[in-house]
Amino acid sequence: MSDVKKVVLAYSGGLDTSVILKWLQDTYQCEVVTFTADLGQGEELEPARQKALKFGIKPEHIFIDDLREEFTRDFVFPMFRANALYEGEYLLGTSIARPLIAKRQIEIANAVNADAVSHGATGKGNDQVRFELGYYALKPGVKVVAPWREWDLLSREKLLAYAETNGIPVDMKHKNGGAPYSMDANLLHISFEGRHLEDPKAEAEESMWRWTVSPEAAPDAAEFVDLEYEKGDVVAINGVRLSPAQVLTKLNELGGKHGIGRLDLVENRYVGMKSRGCYETPGGTILLKAHRGIESITLDREVAHLKDDLMPRYASLVYNGYWWSPERKALQVLIDHTQERVNGWVRVKLYKGSVSVVSRDSKDTLFDQTIATFDDDGGAYNQADAGGFIKLNALRMRIAARKGR
Amino acid sequence: MSDVKKVVLAYSGGLDTSVILKWLQDTYQCEVVTFTADLGQGEELEPARQKALKFGIKPEHIFIDDLREEFTRDFVFPMFRANALYEGEYLLGTSIARPLIAKRQIEIANAVNADAVSHGATGKGNDQVRFELGYYALKPGVKVVAPWREWDLLSREKLLAYAETNGIPVDMKHKNGGAPYSMDANLLHISFEGRHLEDPKAEAEESMWRWTVSPEAAPDAAEFVDLEYEKGDVVAINGVRLSPAQVLTKLNELGGKHGIGRLDLVENRYVGMKSRGCYETPGGTILLKAHRGIESITLDREVAHLKDDLMPRYASLVYNGYWWSPERKALQVLIDHTQERVNGWVRVKLYKGSVSVVSRDSKDTLFDQTIATFDDDGGAYNQADAGGFIKLNALRMRIAARKGR
Amino acid sequence: MSDVKKVVLAYSGGLDTSVILKWLQDTYQCEVVTFTADLGQGEELEPARQKALKFGIKPEHIFIDDLREEFTRDFVFPMFRANALYEGEYLLGTSIARPLIAKRQIEIANAVNADAVSHGATGKGNDQVRFELGYYALKPGVKVVAPWREWDLLSREKLLAYAETNGIPVDMKHKNGGAPYSMDANLLHISFEGRHLEDPKAEAEESMWRWTVSPEAAPDAAEFVDLEYEKGDVVAINGVRLSPAQVLTKLNELGGKHGIGRLDLVENRYVGMKSRGCYETPGGTILLKAHRGIESITLDREVAHLKDDLMPRYASLVYNGYWWSPERKALQVLIDHTQERVNGWVRVKLYKGSVSVVSRDSKDTLFDQTIATFDDDGGAYNQADAGGFIKLNALRMRIAARKGR
Amino acid sequence: MSDVKKVVLAYSGGLDTSVILKWLQDTYQCEVVTFTADLGQGEELEPARQKALKFGIKPEHIFIDDLREEFTRDFVFPMFRANALYEGEYLLGTSIARPLIAKRQIEIANAVNADAVSHGATGKGNDQVRFELGYYALKPGVKVVAPWREWDLLSREKLLAYAETNGIPVDMKHKNGGAPYSMDANLLHISFEGRHLEDPKAEAEESMWRWTVSPEAAPDAAEFVDLEYEKGDVVAINGVRLSPAQVLTKLNELGGKHGIGRLDLVENRYVGMKSRGCYETPGGTILLKAHRGIESITLDREVAHLKDDLMPRYASLVYNGYWWSPERKALQVLIDHTQERVNGWVRVKLYKGSVSVVSRDSKDTLFDQTIATFDDDGGAYNQADAGGFIKLNALRMRIAARKGR
Repeated sequence: MSDVKKVVLAYSGGLDTSVILKWLQDTYQCEVVTFTADLGQGEELEPARQKALKFGIKPEHIFIDDLREEFTRDFVFPMFRANALYEGEYLLGTSIARPLIAKRQIEIANAVNADAVSHGATGKGNDQVRFELGYYALKPGVKVVAPWREWDLLSREKLLAYAETNGIPVDMKHKNGGAPYSMDANLLHISFEGRHLEDPKAEAEESMWRWTVSPEAAPDAAEFVDLEYEKGDVVAINGVRLSPAQVLTKLNELGGKHGIGRLDLVENRYVGMKSRGCYETPGGTILLKAHRGIESITLDREVAHLKDDLMPRYASLVYNGYWWSPERKALQVLIDHTQERVNGWVRVKLYKGSVSVVSRDSKDTLFDQTIATFDDDGGAYNQADAGGFIKLNALRMRIAARKGR
Repeated sequence: MSDVKKVVLAYSGGLDTSVILKWLQDTYQCEVVTFTADLGQGEELEPARQKALKFGIKPEHIFIDDLREEFTRDFVFPMFRANALYEGEYLLGTSIARPLIAKRQIEIANAVNADAVSHGATGKGNDQVRFELGYYALKPGVKVVAPWREWDLLSREKLLAYAETNGIPVDMKHKNGGAPYSMDANLLHISFEGRHLEDPKAEAEESMWRWTVSPEAAPDAAEFVDLEYEKGDVVAINGVRLSPAQVLTKLNELGGKHGIGRLDLVENRYVGMKSRGCYETPGGTILLKAHRGIESITLDREVAHLKDDLMPRYASLVYNGYWWSPERKALQVLIDHTQERVNGWVRVKLYKGSVSVVSRDSKDTLFDQTIATFDDDGGAYNQADAGGFIKLNALRMRIAARKGR
Repeated sequence: MSDVKKVVLAYSGGLDTSVILKWLQDTYQCEVVTFTADLGQGEELEPARQKALKFGIKPEHIFIDDLREEFTRDFVFPMFRANALYEGEYLLGTSIARPLIAKRQIEIANAVNADAVSHGATGKGNDQVRFELGYYALKPGVKVVAPWREWDLLSREKLLAYAETNGIPVDMKHKNGGAPYSMDANLLHISFEGRHLEDPKAEAEESMWRWTVSPEAAPDAAEFVDLEYEKGDVVAINGVRLSPAQVLTKLNELGGKHGIGRLDLVENRYVGMKSRGCYETPGGTILLKAHRGIESITLDREVAHLKDDLMPRYASLVYNGYWWSPERKALQVLIDHTQERVNGWVRVKLYKGSVSVVSRDSKDTLFDQTIATFDDDGGAYNQADAGGFIKLNALRMRIAARKGR
Repeated sequence: MSDVKKVVLAYSGGLDTSVILKWLQDTYQCEVVTFTADLGQGEELEPARQKALKFGIKPEHIFIDDLREEFTRDFVFPMFRANALYEGEYLLGTSIARPLIAKRQIEIANAVNADAVSHGATGKGNDQVRFELGYYALKPGVKVVAPWREWDLLSREKLLAYAETNGIPVDMKHKNGGAPYSMDANLLHISFEGRHLEDPKAEAEESMWRWTVSPEAAPDAAEFVDLEYEKGDVVAINGVRLSPAQVLTKLNELGGKHGIGRLDLVENRYVGMKSRGCYETPGGTILLKAHRGIESITLDREVAHLKDDLMPRYASLVYNGYWWSPERKALQVLIDHTQERVNGWVRVKLYKGSVSVVSRDSKDTLFDQTIATFDDDGGAYNQADAGGFIKLNALRMRIAARKGR
């Protein structure tokens, strides 16, 4: 067991990280610094301060930050410029929050002169990887304490027993068997895993979902929303200019109201197993659809295809925790370069679980009506050119066919 | 103008191809062979025979084929094994029908000893490319007559005048300005382009859509449907074994009833311009979602990612008309190989415009509940392994950070 | 035939472009502006001025530019940062010069208010595409005159007859059957195509090669050369700081002396046919090898692999003439970003036709001897970590094997 | 420490694996089964049998196999069909042997009912990964013993002391400080790492190389060799039909004689560090060059480009040890499909360190002289087609330029 003097813990204030806090103090006899972030998960953070104080954490060692704007501006929005979708479906809601938490933990570690960091992710999941790749990339000599990989509290019973023995308050929910799901939430999404969901055959229960109404319960009338883009990011909704976090908050509200953004899938974890997860990403689901809409008129075809070809790689990098890697940054440089002219507006229709683009325009449009028209185009396009175009594109196949291949 | 003796025309029986038929007879003084295919477009074909006879086509030169099974089995299904989606959205409904028409035209040309083929696609679109790349790949010396690139009937007025002059019946619809859209239909989809849609800002009118009810008009109760897969293809719906074309027909019916599969987008044509199109692909939209669902439990992660990386390339090949190319065939060999174990079933929920996967299972599943569980796994997975996994994956970034990079 | 008032011709002063000059004057009755560039092809340019004057070109309409530095700095060097190699072998010597010529022609067209440009490339090759894609990208409304696609002088006999009729001097070489090869030269390379080489079985004759001695005739002693890199470009040779064109000139001299850079291959042209070409690229061959050498110690693994994955696409873009396309520019942004730390030096050995890297170092090296060592590393690397790394990487395959897959 | 009853050891008979043999017996009190393979490394194998017997291994537990044909036919040749090159340079000589050794170990484990396997690779290198990914893929429940990751004999002194204590003969070479390099050899190559080479600045010493003469010492006359291909594999040399292993043996002899196939590079290991290695791959270097030669006339352009795009991925899979993975197999299916018509012959010139293709032909050639010719082609190719081809390819750039983009 390595020698740890001062450790910065990603602390939610919940049962698990409270047990970890105590366990770190007992096991390493080290000073613990708590870090609690508001990423839009929708929970009050001040209780975390009170709990930390009760564990004897020094007031100056309790960090509570509102990171919603940084999260949206520097993590969520850059990712949506890439149209990132893991395995064709997942909007990477959990993945994208981890690098920011890691970054902030390391900043705090540097500020308070800590030699270690710790988190509450288990040894089976992706989050441990995302946290720790961030830690190591940003502070290569840091010590990492991952209690779930070290301790013997692997069953819920043992954890609860440890809590009771150590005077950590256990609320009724946990006494009654704990949350029915493992959940994670931030401004981009809320996720559900485990328990009932561990059987891919089992349908998710309606009662599980938190951020979205069921499509059946959504309003009977569709709602149309205008999104305005600058350099690939939404800067205004229905004509009202908003900050990044405000944009995402507003879209979550709209999407949630219309039952948009539920997803139930089996995904492939970086650590090698398949896992079933359910996600609610109301705002993100709208963002992806609308971003493709604005790109459809402002991006060159081959640039768009280059982005599409690179997208799965970018998404895997984010999913696997390589946000701080040089290859993600290199891809981002390319992606951001392509967004220079992704300006304009898109109108989306929200209705009972689905979002569709119905209209779009841009001063930077590459759509050329004089050429695209079915009517006489006055010579803007010479149809005869197509004959040569086809002939030369066919040439290698004609030669092959002539040679009996 | 090349010397043409006998030409096989892709003949729908409609105004445009009737004008072409007459124009070919007049311009080339050649014998015309008509080929009319039932690809599921939902139109009667016998009138085409009557019209052809009126133009003096010999009975043995009139070919009318029901290609629905071949179309679904050998074109649609292989494409869906690839999860093909052009530019992240388009299900390639028009694109996938063209190679089959081209193939059949060439088969007929060989059978009747024709030296030329002809089609009614314009010089601005993708279809001319798809037809002609097929012709050249399958019969490299064939002569291709593309009237829209040759004649001077480029405006609708001239076309109507030619029709009247030549006694070609023009129905009321055309006299009143013609169809409000340029349409194409087959068992996979119906598409709309042109006219009102030429402005990407203009919303599509509700009256345009043909195969789907509006989500608003769809039933208020969701419907759950079970799809059974063998080697990546749906072979049964709700326990009833069906042929490929029956599968697609049934899914179109179900999707159409629930308002599923409408799409409004701006796409990049192979010939270099952007174009706005609206599509209804009810069955295909269900197929894509469900196929990803069955693959999610039966495909290895890296095989799935390899497919995702290659998908945009495959989709572009189909879109651009390279179905008969050696590179599409090489990709198909890989894709089909990956589908060997894509067996099992998926339950989808259809409701007011959206389709979602709610349940899935397979005897060939790679989902391993004993490992994925959040509960004690009895040592099936050693959490400590993750520490080494992360350390080595982080090593290059740690070295870089230590060196101040 | 379009109406041309003033045309800027890429004019070498040789027989073919002299015939074109005259043909343009006669056919279009237009004013001709000549543009002759020194790209390092090793020919005197002043004779081109004299010839142009004889055709009645106004002195202010004769442009002769030394573009060697611009060519190397803005075209050759950026391309080598990408390690570009078309079809695994070809260093793109011809391809990379065309976009610069096109750019300069358009600059001149704008300066002299010309409405058209013209070049001497044939209708079968890649160069017409490279020239014209450049013209259109930089001046979309320009008229392009490609005489080889328009006139009837397709045989050498007709061309010579036209020359004699019009008083264009034909030297002895052409009277005796013309050059045995079609050649193209610039500071990066010289190429040979056609005639004897049209049979891929036929060995190239030793007498063909111009810039390199045969390996057999090269010095019996190897020569070692030190190349110094800054941001991916060579800035000094053997300790002497040089400009880009000086670097390439010097490496050509060194490579040529040692018989380095000959290549004989069959390549796939963009226009659809296979073509046999022979190339001498002495300096470029050294540059590629050395650049991989300096990257091997300064680039992160995944960044290097990303570059390798994109390289064939980049090379095809250059080969096919898409230098001025937005997708080439987007890739270049990524590539240039990766070169920020590609600093240091490489020692190469030149000997009888081959170049090898024997030594390399950098202040920005990512090579970490304390970790790489086979000796005791004092704990810098914990070998036990590898066990977990392997176990998790193997997990998906173990699960599959356990399930009999 | 897991319970091991019977372990199959990859046993070379050398000092390291002899120490491992003894250490396994002592540490696990288990039965050891030795497996020694002839992969063309050029060492006698019978001494390994004698040594094993001295350690008390039962005769029926000593396996000595000549795997040269299987190695070349089922591993080396399939890999060369892909033109695999790791990081643009490395021919994967070590990587490709490991999967076969792993496979055979598992076959033996199954035959003798062993529960474990063991190898002598260190915890820092790629080979441990390659061995163990193979073990786990082929026998998911097998126990793996990797002594270098477990024991405390990490320094050479401790290893020698252990050997002497346990009566394991240590020859003079090891007493004098051991081999100056870490080496690995098989029919494809010999590699050198460590010691002197750990400094990337340090030039390799001429005395290090084993399989090739120095280019300077190679014959003064070039040698021309004809290679005949069937489905992408060499089946005859200079008209003599040979088995796969005979082909590789012969090419090694020819390449070695002419100083061909030396390589000195810094590569990126899968475990995260950079490493300097020197390689001699005489026959493989010829094979790669010649295979590209025969593909250049027999492969369709786009198929060749697809292969080039996938090659780095394939090479990384082999390098990282994923030979037995489903994704490598899927890629191989595609690659092998493309080789169906890669038939014909290639003539290569070998001279003082370099190999070049000088001539090639095939009954399946796609080279079409009637079209490629610079002379009049009698209308086989219509040069005017190129105008339309270029116009449409330029269209998107023209539209963009017109719109000021």
